[in-house]
Amino acid sequence: MNLNRTPIAVSEAVRRVVSGISPLPVETISYTESYGRILARNLAASMDVPRFDKSAMDGFAIRAKDSRGASGENRITFKVAAEVPAGAASDYELNENEAFRIMTGAPVPKSADAVVMFEQTRQDAGSFSIRRPFEMGENIAIQGEECTVGDIIVSAGTLINPGAVAALATFGYKDVEVYRKPVVGILATGSELVDIDAPLEVGKIRNSNGPMIKSQLQRMNIEPRIYALEADDFETLLLRVQQMLGEVDAIITTGGVSVGDYDHLPKLYEALGAKELFNKVGMRPGSVTTVSMLGSKPMFGLSGNPSACYTGFELFARPAFMKMVGHDRIFAPVLNAVLDGDFKKANPFTRFIRAEIDYREGRVYATPAGFNKSNAVTSIAKSNGIIVLPGGTRGYEKGDGVKVMMTDMTTGIDHFDI
Amino acid sequence: MNLNRTPIAVSEAVRRVVSGISPLPVETISYTESYGRILARNLAASMDVPRFDKSAMDGFAIRAKDSRGASGENRITFKVAAEVPAGAASDYELNENEAFRIMTGAPVPKSADAVVMFEQTRQDAGSFSIRRPFEMGENIAIQGEECTVGDIIVSAGTLINPGAVAALATFGYKDVEVYRKPVVGILATGSELVDIDAPLEVGKIRNSNGPMIKSQLQRMNIEPRIYALEADDFETLLLRVQQMLGEVDAIITTGGVSVGDYDHLPKLYEALGAKELFNKVGMRPGSVTTVSMLGSKPMFGLSGNPSACYTGFELFARPAFMKMVGHDRIFAPVLNAVLDGDFKKANPFTRFIRAEIDYREGRVYATPAGFNKSNAVTSIAKSNGIIVLPGGTRGYEKGDGVKVMMTDMTTGIDHFDI
Repeated sequence: MNLNRTPIAVSEAVRRVVSGISPLPVETISYTESYGRILARNLAASMDVPRFDKSAMDGFAIRAKDSRGASGENRITFKVAAEVPAGAASDYELNENEAFRIMTGAPVPKSADAVVMFEQTRQDAGSFSIRRPFEMGENIAIQGEECTVGDIIVSAGTLINPGAVAALATFGYKDVEVYRKPVVGILATGSELVDIDAPLEVGKIRNSNGPMIKSQLQRMNIEPRIYALEADDFETLLLRVQQMLGEVDAIITTGGVSVGDYDHLPKLYEALGAKELFNKVGMRPGSVTTVSMLGSKPMFGLSGNPSACYTGFELFARPAFMKMVGHDRIFAPVLNAVLDGDFKKANPFTRFIRAEIDYREGRVYATPAGFNKSNAVTSIAKSNGIIVLPGGTRGYEKGDGVKVMMTDMTTGIDHFDI
Repeated sequence: MNLNRTPIAVSEAVRRVVSGISPLPVETISYTESYGRILARNLAASMDVPRFDKSAMDGFAIRAKDSRGASGENRITFKVAAEVPAGAASDYELNENEAFRIMTGAPVPKSADAVVMFEQTRQDAGSFSIRRPFEMGENIAIQGEECTVGDIIVSAGTLINPGAVAALATFGYKDVEVYRKPVVGILATGSELVDIDAPLEVGKIRNSNGPMIKSQLQRMNIEPRIYALEADDFETLLLRVQQMLGEVDAIITTGGVSVGDYDHLPKLYEALGAKELFNKVGMRPGSVTTVSMLGSKPMFGLSGNPSACYTGFELFARPAFMKMVGHDRIFAPVLNAVLDGDFKKANPFTRFIRAEIDYREGRVYATPAGFNKSNAVTSIAKSNGIIVLPGGTRGYEKGDGVKVMMTDMTTGIDHFDI
């Protein structure tokens, strides 16, 4: 057993993980179910927008030239000759000082070239007057002014947000190609773990990492598959993981990754023929995180300690899954924040501290979320971000500037910024 | 028909909406399904954490006093007398210079009071030696050091994040009380709207607001119910909305809220006996947003223009639904950002501009997302935030500081910060 693991830098560990990952195959789904998925093809405009010159206001469509010379003292009166409701057209040809009554979004008939808002008129039965001249195109949305056929509206690799769904609908893309979502198997190991309703004997704890990782996956819009071990021996573990490899795209185990006597993972990876990317990282918590690859399938060996497990997931598993799902911005945004509490602990390693993030007057404030040890579970419960403290420092005080990894955003950045 | 609506300030409009909203009733769900819901009761510790003194490392548990005087020149040797695997206990009483082999997380037996990490030892068959003295409690997680029975871990009104799920599991809360999620009905109105696979005749556009709002609700973890009109007349509308009121907690309509001839909403609210909170807001886009209340049920009359519809949802509907679902931080975070493109347009009203948000070197950069008119649909597709420009300004240039509403975060702030 290798008791002298050599830690690698966090950024190098992240690089090793994501460099081996490829997006999953493409599948076709309905645009109404596409929110949160990643576009596998560019979304291009299938027509001009607007598709025709349309009224931008509720009012009257006129010939601009008829409004010349209008003023408060010299109001010009128009006769309402026809009307164009929204969703209809009109072939009527305006004569001098005639107007269409027109609704927002309705096509402006060819003989008109400006729209007067109701609010800009004084109305009478069948007529109205205006007090200023209108320019050609005023209050009209011109065909193609927003985009023309073929323009790329959203690029492949982008998360389909509510606006992208609206664009799919606008351009008639009923079916949309997206990357398949990974099926992720979770296996919590450790003879100390019991189910939530089992009695808590001495030395036992309830399995909290399994449900936590499930939620971390749900936060990414990925549904996990939960597995369990009937016995805590190597053969049972090997058989279960072999079964999982046939059913999932990635595996997350928790526990069993340390250097103690009962840690089976190194032997497991060897038996499977998996390639170990690293087994120790220069960070706290989560230093004993192990990541291996078997073909295209990553296996994340996260710590059994809740905070270490949580941090290992956010640092290594999340960008890997973001890449599998086809996202081109796979890393959590990192923001400058003001430290809103002391953190006096010095540490030779990069330290990741679960934090409560708040926003005041446009600035980001980060408070270490309570008790900070790798086995802490309560601090994660209050955390909506992770403070990143570089190694080798002498402790931080309230008011210091720090970096914060934002763990609760759907969008990301395209580089690891730590 | 009231053609002279009086605009109210955005902040006043928001205040009117949320002040009339109450959280929905409480329901009980499984902790494994609770991610993203809002806690209706404080989550209190049901036991000390740790529940017993436990080893924080893989190594050997010793009596600290036996290590006194150890140094590089004077290594002290311990005999491994017993072992304590994770998830088990041991009754063995250590004698002088005896040790337990112990795993991370295992209970430290009463007769030991410090843990030596494997890495801190030189091992031999059945024994090991150390080169420095250990203090009482070293590498031991002391019972209750993280929290003690009754401590509030997460307060009611907080979103259940992955760490809160872990805390529910840890404390054995299989069932959790959360606020019911609102059922929100969406009704897109307008005779110009056609289905996605219908032919696009002159004057027609595809319904993009319905699917967009559905996605905006999904982003909030709320499932919408979609309704349609068979005919675009007042009686059909009234009957449909009456039906919806019996089936949903809130209604969103799009279109039909302007002052044109074919806008039925004012009459609708009157017929229903709903209380109109406002029908015009001093903002662009979305000025013709109307919000009414019928009893405890809000009805959002959003514009038919996509960008105005999108903005109206984020400003008014989102905080209302956040309050219904029991969140105590119902508003989108607002961050200082650097404007990453010009926006020269002056405007007397508060302006909300769909923006592409990026993060570089810890700072937030916001680029107006393309074409900016209320009827723009393509700009929303690229947007992951909304730039807020106060009214009465003379236009902004690249590099200027601006405020940005963050629309893609699960957490919020407790006040409207615009």
